[in-house]
Amino acid sequence: MTRPEISSERLWARLMALGEDGALPGGGVNRQALSAEEILAWRRVIAWGRAAGLVASTDPAGNLFLTLEGTLSYLTPVVAGSHIDSQPTGGLFDGAFGTLAALEAVTAIVESGLRPERSIIVVGWMNEEGSRFAPGMMGSELFAGLRPLEEVMAVRDADGISVGEALKSVHDAFPDIAHRPLGFDIHSYIEPHIEQADVLETEGAVIGVVSGIQGKKTYDITVKGREAHAGTEPMERRQDAVQAFARMATRMHAAMAGDDVVKFTIGRVTVEPNAPSVVSAKVTFRIDLRHPANAALDAFGTQLEEIAAGEAEPCSVEIRRLVDAPSNGFEEGLKAQIRASADRHGFPRLDLLSAAGHDARQMAPLTRSAMIFIPCRGGVSHHPDEWAEPAHVAAGAAVLLDLLLEEAGVSCNQGDA
Amino acid sequence: MTRPEISSERLWARLMALGEDGALPGGGVNRQALSAEEILAWRRVIAWGRAAGLVASTDPAGNLFLTLEGTLSYLTPVVAGSHIDSQPTGGLFDGAFGTLAALEAVTAIVESGLRPERSIIVVGWMNEEGSRFAPGMMGSELFAGLRPLEEVMAVRDADGISVGEALKSVHDAFPDIAHRPLGFDIHSYIEPHIEQADVLETEGAVIGVVSGIQGKKTYDITVKGREAHAGTEPMERRQDAVQAFARMATRMHAAMAGDDVVKFTIGRVTVEPNAPSVVSAKVTFRIDLRHPANAALDAFGTQLEEIAAGEAEPCSVEIRRLVDAPSNGFEEGLKAQIRASADRHGFPRLDLLSAAGHDARQMAPLTRSAMIFIPCRGGVSHHPDEWAEPAHVAAGAAVLLDLLLEEAGVSCNQGDA
Repeated sequence: MTRPEISSERLWARLMALGEDGALPGGGVNRQALSAEEILAWRRVIAWGRAAGLVASTDPAGNLFLTLEGTLSYLTPVVAGSHIDSQPTGGLFDGAFGTLAALEAVTAIVESGLRPERSIIVVGWMNEEGSRFAPGMMGSELFAGLRPLEEVMAVRDADGISVGEALKSVHDAFPDIAHRPLGFDIHSYIEPHIEQADVLETEGAVIGVVSGIQGKKTYDITVKGREAHAGTEPMERRQDAVQAFARMATRMHAAMAGDDVVKFTIGRVTVEPNAPSVVSAKVTFRIDLRHPANAALDAFGTQLEEIAAGEAEPCSVEIRRLVDAPSNGFEEGLKAQIRASADRHGFPRLDLLSAAGHDARQMAPLTRSAMIFIPCRGGVSHHPDEWAEPAHVAAGAAVLLDLLLEEAGVSCNQGDA
Repeated sequence: MTRPEISSERLWARLMALGEDGALPGGGVNRQALSAEEILAWRRVIAWGRAAGLVASTDPAGNLFLTLEGTLSYLTPVVAGSHIDSQPTGGLFDGAFGTLAALEAVTAIVESGLRPERSIIVVGWMNEEGSRFAPGMMGSELFAGLRPLEEVMAVRDADGISVGEALKSVHDAFPDIAHRPLGFDIHSYIEPHIEQADVLETEGAVIGVVSGIQGKKTYDITVKGREAHAGTEPMERRQDAVQAFARMATRMHAAMAGDDVVKFTIGRVTVEPNAPSVVSAKVTFRIDLRHPANAALDAFGTQLEEIAAGEAEPCSVEIRRLVDAPSNGFEEGLKAQIRASADRHGFPRLDLLSAAGHDARQMAPLTRSAMIFIPCRGGVSHHPDEWAEPAHVAAGAAVLLDLLLEEAGVSCNQGDA
């Protein structure tokens, strides 16, 4: 038998096809978690998996699994994939590349006629993006037992729909797939992903050996002012929530100066009553803070909380901590395998840190974990212009296939024996 | 015949009844322009007017008129009233007091058996508040020929409904009222209103003789940045529209320091895509600037435009001027009449400037115009807590009645002759 090889044409065609589920008029996708568009995407991915003989299942967290059964059922499985939900104006590669590359690698193994000793499970984690339901990484956090199921199911989107309600409509759409309990033991976890920055592109590398994921903190800050008439209320008597927000945002941004690697973003701002001639009663905003060094992350977090408290007057402020995820590193053995595979194929490679958060962050404390990055054009992501070259997509899947063969115990010399 | 007298009980009862149209659960009203709630309010006001023998009509701008025919049809009419639309979380008095006080005064004249020489027209101007359709003062601006009808009719609300479409549904709801052409000659215009500040209350006055309305400028500012991933895009490469907005807002606010009477408000802010982990591509915000002195108003306006341009980088900015209304003064003869009436009734009075804009601003260049203010508790307006004392409501209507008798030529000695 021949060594399995991925079909780069099929993988690319499937990436493009998946981009039709939630396609935006000007390009890119809006395929938010547990939406009607994501149901369409599940339908496609499940059909592709079944065509290769994989068995579809889900769990109480709404994660999607496609399993290739191994020959030794007592061994723990190898898991590979990412997520298929997107930002509201997202691209075709963030998440989708990881899940479809894993599906392609497993399909290649099946087509070669070989069987792994360990089962291989292709995963699509529920709500990685956290745009519709905040915060993200819900599926992998629930899998890892980091948050109570009831709490996550109660989170509501802007229309008042809860995760539990939305998940029920997804599960109802697939009455014929198995439901498995939440969480199981894993031999190793490998997640391919686009880099979402331009380090690989700048350095001319094709494969990124991810050393770890930078730490992240998020906060919801609520500034409470007092509604008043814009034409009559004297300036010195106002409790203007928009102005308190603006002061906080400006000072917070200034506090980040001088650190080359910190990432500080206020991406969501909600003003009430948001009427042109009314002094604002309330502003709610989300802070997204990231840093590779845990000490610096903690110090910046403390500083942001101090600024929010210090600049609130004459308004009041409430600070709610959402995500508090320290920086983590990936497993040395898997990183060595990625390097060896890249070298074998002749793909230029680079060790680098992930600036973006990924589901692999939640897997790392549970099992041997790794991430394989491929370049994305100009570092653009979370945007319809997000783009990865077909050759790089194929390279990432080829390296993943090498790792799956090794991790799941596929002997490519079976036929020669 | 006896001199006409208003019924303070009836006026108060009607103010409370009108508050049921668009009533909010916790008090106050949401009766925005041309809404289903405003249709209910029209229905009530027209019924009350007809019960007093007034004739209802409307015009292409959607203004509501209730006419008491005078005996000398060749004389131009006296117009009195205000508006019956509200802010989304408005009170029971802003606007409604003026229109219902005028209706009460005219009803008192009818009930006394006297007839004015000039017609008296009670008015409810279309969309004074400008919250659903921006900017406000639409009905009076159209009446005064300050804006093209087509342009105003094309303005859309947040749901995409145009003024023209909403107005059609109002007009369709009242097939039996007359349609008159836009604009007509007026002998004099008098608008009673709550003060929306606390000068009268603080000074212990009941009647405000309004010297003029402070000038106002509004702007729509659009800051364009570039969408990017919150976890990966280096800080120095970002074009973060939220941060550019925050800098502008903070510097603009600081630029107002040291001026006791300027009013500067950013009440509406819209962020796109408004996703927690996406650097913002766009922020649109509205500036509301007011000042009683036109030179200062212009200087502050220029300064705001300079700050918007200067703080935009690395984003780009578009500055759109919406309202540019200079400060104006009211007619001396009418002000003298208000003072004389207040003194005759024994109502403590005060000359003061209006900090809020009113439809009377548009009438002042057209005809002899005046405003009668009454106190509102704590100066609170554009809020469900807005409140005026029944005695002050009655006082304002009584002074208006005196002016209408004089202006419309009602001889109270007719019976004695």
